[in-house]
Amino acid sequence: MQTPFHTVGLVGKYNNQGMGVSVRALAAFLHARGHEVLLACQTAEHLGIEDFPTRNLHELAAGSDVVVVLGGDGTMLSIARELAPNGVPLIGVNQGRLGFLTDITIDHMLEAIAEILSGQYVAEERILLNGQVRRGSELVFESTAFNDVVVGKGGTGRLIDLKIAINSEFVYSQRADGLVVASPTGTTAYALSSGGPIMHPTLEAVAMVPICPHTLSARPIVVSSHSRIEIHLTYADDARVHFDGQIYFDLHSGDRVWITRAVHPVTLLHPHSYSYYDTLRQKLHWGKKL
Amino acid sequence: MQTPFHTVGLVGKYNNQGMGVSVRALAAFLHARGHEVLLACQTAEHLGIEDFPTRNLHELAAGSDVVVVLGGDGTMLSIARELAPNGVPLIGVNQGRLGFLTDITIDHMLEAIAEILSGQYVAEERILLNGQVRRGSELVFESTAFNDVVVGKGGTGRLIDLKIAINSEFVYSQRADGLVVASPTGTTAYALSSGGPIMHPTLEAVAMVPICPHTLSARPIVVSSHSRIEIHLTYADDARVHFDGQIYFDLHSGDRVWITRAVHPVTLLHPHSYSYYDTLRQKLHWGKKL
Amino acid sequence: MQTPFHTVGLVGKYNNQGMGVSVRALAAFLHARGHEVLLACQTAEHLGIEDFPTRNLHELAAGSDVVVVLGGDGTMLSIARELAPNGVPLIGVNQGRLGFLTDITIDHMLEAIAEILSGQYVAEERILLNGQVRRGSELVFESTAFNDVVVGKGGTGRLIDLKIAINSEFVYSQRADGLVVASPTGTTAYALSSGGPIMHPTLEAVAMVPICPHTLSARPIVVSSHSRIEIHLTYADDARVHFDGQIYFDLHSGDRVWITRAVHPVTLLHPHSYSYYDTLRQKLHWGKKL
Amino acid sequence: MQTPFHTVGLVGKYNNQGMGVSVRALAAFLHARGHEVLLACQTAEHLGIEDFPTRNLHELAAGSDVVVVLGGDGTMLSIARELAPNGVPLIGVNQGRLGFLTDITIDHMLEAIAEILSGQYVAEERILLNGQVRRGSELVFESTAFNDVVVGKGGTGRLIDLKIAINSEFVYSQRADGLVVASPTGTTAYALSSGGPIMHPTLEAVAMVPICPHTLSARPIVVSSHSRIEIHLTYADDARVHFDGQIYFDLHSGDRVWITRAVHPVTLLHPHSYSYYDTLRQKLHWGKKL
Repeated sequence: MQTPFHTVGLVGKYNNQGMGVSVRALAAFLHARGHEVLLACQTAEHLGIEDFPTRNLHELAAGSDVVVVLGGDGTMLSIARELAPNGVPLIGVNQGRLGFLTDITIDHMLEAIAEILSGQYVAEERILLNGQVRRGSELVFESTAFNDVVVGKGGTGRLIDLKIAINSEFVYSQRADGLVVASPTGTTAYALSSGGPIMHPTLEAVAMVPICPHTLSARPIVVSSHSRIEIHLTYADDARVHFDGQIYFDLHSGDRVWITRAVHPVTLLHPHSYSYYDTLRQKLHWGKKL
Repeated sequence: MQTPFHTVGLVGKYNNQGMGVSVRALAAFLHARGHEVLLACQTAEHLGIEDFPTRNLHELAAGSDVVVVLGGDGTMLSIARELAPNGVPLIGVNQGRLGFLTDITIDHMLEAIAEILSGQYVAEERILLNGQVRRGSELVFESTAFNDVVVGKGGTGRLIDLKIAINSEFVYSQRADGLVVASPTGTTAYALSSGGPIMHPTLEAVAMVPICPHTLSARPIVVSSHSRIEIHLTYADDARVHFDGQIYFDLHSGDRVWITRAVHPVTLLHPHSYSYYDTLRQKLHWGKKL
Repeated sequence: MQTPFHTVGLVGKYNNQGMGVSVRALAAFLHARGHEVLLACQTAEHLGIEDFPTRNLHELAAGSDVVVVLGGDGTMLSIARELAPNGVPLIGVNQGRLGFLTDITIDHMLEAIAEILSGQYVAEERILLNGQVRRGSELVFESTAFNDVVVGKGGTGRLIDLKIAINSEFVYSQRADGLVVASPTGTTAYALSSGGPIMHPTLEAVAMVPICPHTLSARPIVVSSHSRIEIHLTYADDARVHFDGQIYFDLHSGDRVWITRAVHPVTLLHPHSYSYYDTLRQKLHWGKKL
Repeated sequence: MQTPFHTVGLVGKYNNQGMGVSVRALAAFLHARGHEVLLACQTAEHLGIEDFPTRNLHELAAGSDVVVVLGGDGTMLSIARELAPNGVPLIGVNQGRLGFLTDITIDHMLEAIAEILSGQYVAEERILLNGQVRRGSELVFESTAFNDVVVGKGGTGRLIDLKIAINSEFVYSQRADGLVVASPTGTTAYALSSGGPIMHPTLEAVAMVPICPHTLSARPIVVSSHSRIEIHLTYADDARVHFDGQIYFDLHSGDRVWITRAVHPVTLLHPHSYSYYDTLRQKLHWGKKL
């Protein structure tokens, strides 16, 4: 067998028994086709699979030519954030309905992955975002997001006051529930619910989408992904910054959140038949050809 | 002097020293014109005014023919909720910029109030909302709102799942940041930031406005104010119900929030020159006549 | 047979051969059940049906206890405008997908109509709008709408300038593509595409929805259906007023369009199982119960 | 005098007497500072200015180091479309309120232009769009737009059916009033009224914004400016394609409109103090710093 992807790493959704059958089936299938298969420790342990070598997540990435993620978009978000620095390409398999990032369904998993591994694939490089929280002169928190960095009000439900600058140039002040800063990938997630546009995933751009802004003429703004977006939390009783809705950090009045493109992008591999717009139409229930 | 409003109660914004001059000026002016003046205890005490009889809020309402509220829209919201059952009409004076509910500015306070008290006024009856939280078969919380009852996600930032019914008829299920149920008065507040329509304040209707809904075809819905809106919180890690953004109660998965028109409306008195649309144009920065 | 609806009038979609089978089947079914059946002349002639007495539209309405309209929502709009003054209740059958107004599908037509005619129905009274075009002191055009009266730009694509008043009270001036004034029924039609709210069909209200307004803080406004909405076309190269998108009249700069509730409402009869929200969910692809 | 801009061309708004004073003042000022001044024939003729050499528009562009456009954004749109192929940089002076493209007001014209001509400027390259109408295998119309190419319904007010593809990949079918394809510059024009996002003017992207779409889940889409956007007018009684709202062409059912980035961008020169976001805040009435 000739393939650019000899060793294949497998990661399943955290704490999900339902993945067992799929992970075993895929591992056996790949093994039978001559691939070396590595399993993420946690996945192997949790599912009780003992037939394949196991690695922790970073060793898995380091030792694999490609990593297959089985779960939903949420699983892909966290694995992509984790593995982006390793540079290993990722394939997403969704155990339920089609996802934006996990665009292979369980039903077609074996053929689709075989197709990709045989070299018939579309590779898509996608940017991630880096967010830093600065309090006075200190960097108090830093994390990465694949979809979005959201500065939002806390549970008391009070509006927060933000002052936004881009590359040190003042943009506007805003009283709002919050602000979503979305990568192109993230424009089909929370940013979309907040009224933002959809951006093609390979666009070198970032969308800033206000959440329930007090100023009625506020609108989403799209800027270069090479910008530094500076959010100054001028006032808040209670506010947080969220990364992909999975990680958060409590903010104080006066904190500044700086958002830039992350150093490392992530590469997603899709079957040759993949069409971003097909996925959009299905997920958003857009009409078919008339 | 012949007036339907012999005794005038005065209430100032809670804990606000800046009101002192205005409250004294108004009280003296009214006294000089032959009105009996009553002061809310807290206002008198806080501002150190000893020249007028004081009453707690409900005695004030019971003993006055009209109550003047000095502060901002926030002050008017809480006083209106409190005094609606007394039926006493209210006049709103804003110490800063024009408010939606406090539509007399300090600068024009004396003339405007004199005009109203002389019988030159527009009376506007506005409905309030009642919200009940039901947990299993128990009523665990109940409160009133002038602007809105909002069921919203808490500080963790996770979407909540709602199932909405009107008069026991299923409307839709929704994954969203929350749902605003607004009185006509409340349609220029949070509901407006969430994308809701503006409703004329005397309309017998209530607006249901989803906040950042997951379903892109979700839209605000306007129904009769005589409806019972039932919000079933089918799933939430962390959610709350807010009344006018001033009172809140923590919700659990499975809780039901029932919203109906409150038994008692509130009557606002405006100067004869008052125009709701003038206020709208000013507050929303709409264009002037071309 | 005891029924409040002895004589049933039938009207089919204009110029539509496909209706033949359904009209015949329904007429025969009703006849067999002891009803007297009247056919609209045009329908009978067009489909070549000679077994039933025919009437022109107004005679049909005058001689029938109920009129069944077979076609789509467009057919119902025009028949309802025409027959509202007669006061005869209407039943809508849709030959294709479910409509908002034609909420019985061909497949369930016979049972559903039998159910209604036997007295098992929900009657819903819905308002129509009257629109008058005034040029100087003259009334130059007048028509009726079931869904909406739309003042819009013409084909040159230039924005128009409007000045809106309600009951002679100035509301705002607006540069826009146009303005939709929608009855509750019309809020699920063009007004919805323009960003308006959905209003329950029995609400005593009218929605004014700007189309692509130049002022970003412009929002839909909902007012009492007893209001007179005055649209003053202060400037336009090229503009028109449309009634239900089916009738239009060319406007000149300076024209005034006055919109009020029409004198006569229309009564729609639905099967007992009818739910407005069911129709909404189906037509707008809202989620099912979670 | 040392300057990269020795010869300065001047063009005034077409058919506008009011420009006379400003054009004369500017020409005299530049002449006094040692610049060679050329006037557009039409401007000179219309204003009766005989003291400077005149050129037709393309000779003016060919013979000047920079061209100053006096008028409004509309004037700049048409001059920029015309002169983009010449590559001469443009400066915009607005005789009225600040424009997006004409960001120097008459009041500050002399200092601002002196500053720019002395080398203190910000140069901004902005893309234009090319639109081709294909009927069967023929190219039946072609033009350029600085703001937007809009495929829209005509004056009858009927929805049109569009099928959109990007680089031959099917995106969606849509029933709508139309579709705006906007350059970054155009995102503050018609696209904004239609609900589109604001894009930074130097972004290599194009926004597709549906106008009053029938499908409620339709959203603006942002794609690379290197894409070919193909709009197939699958059905229309009456439709047009508009370029900057200044040029239009009647479309037939079946026509295809292909939109790409125009070969030649345009370079705008701004004073050193220029800030795109300042202009945005002023034009859109966004709040000041809190």
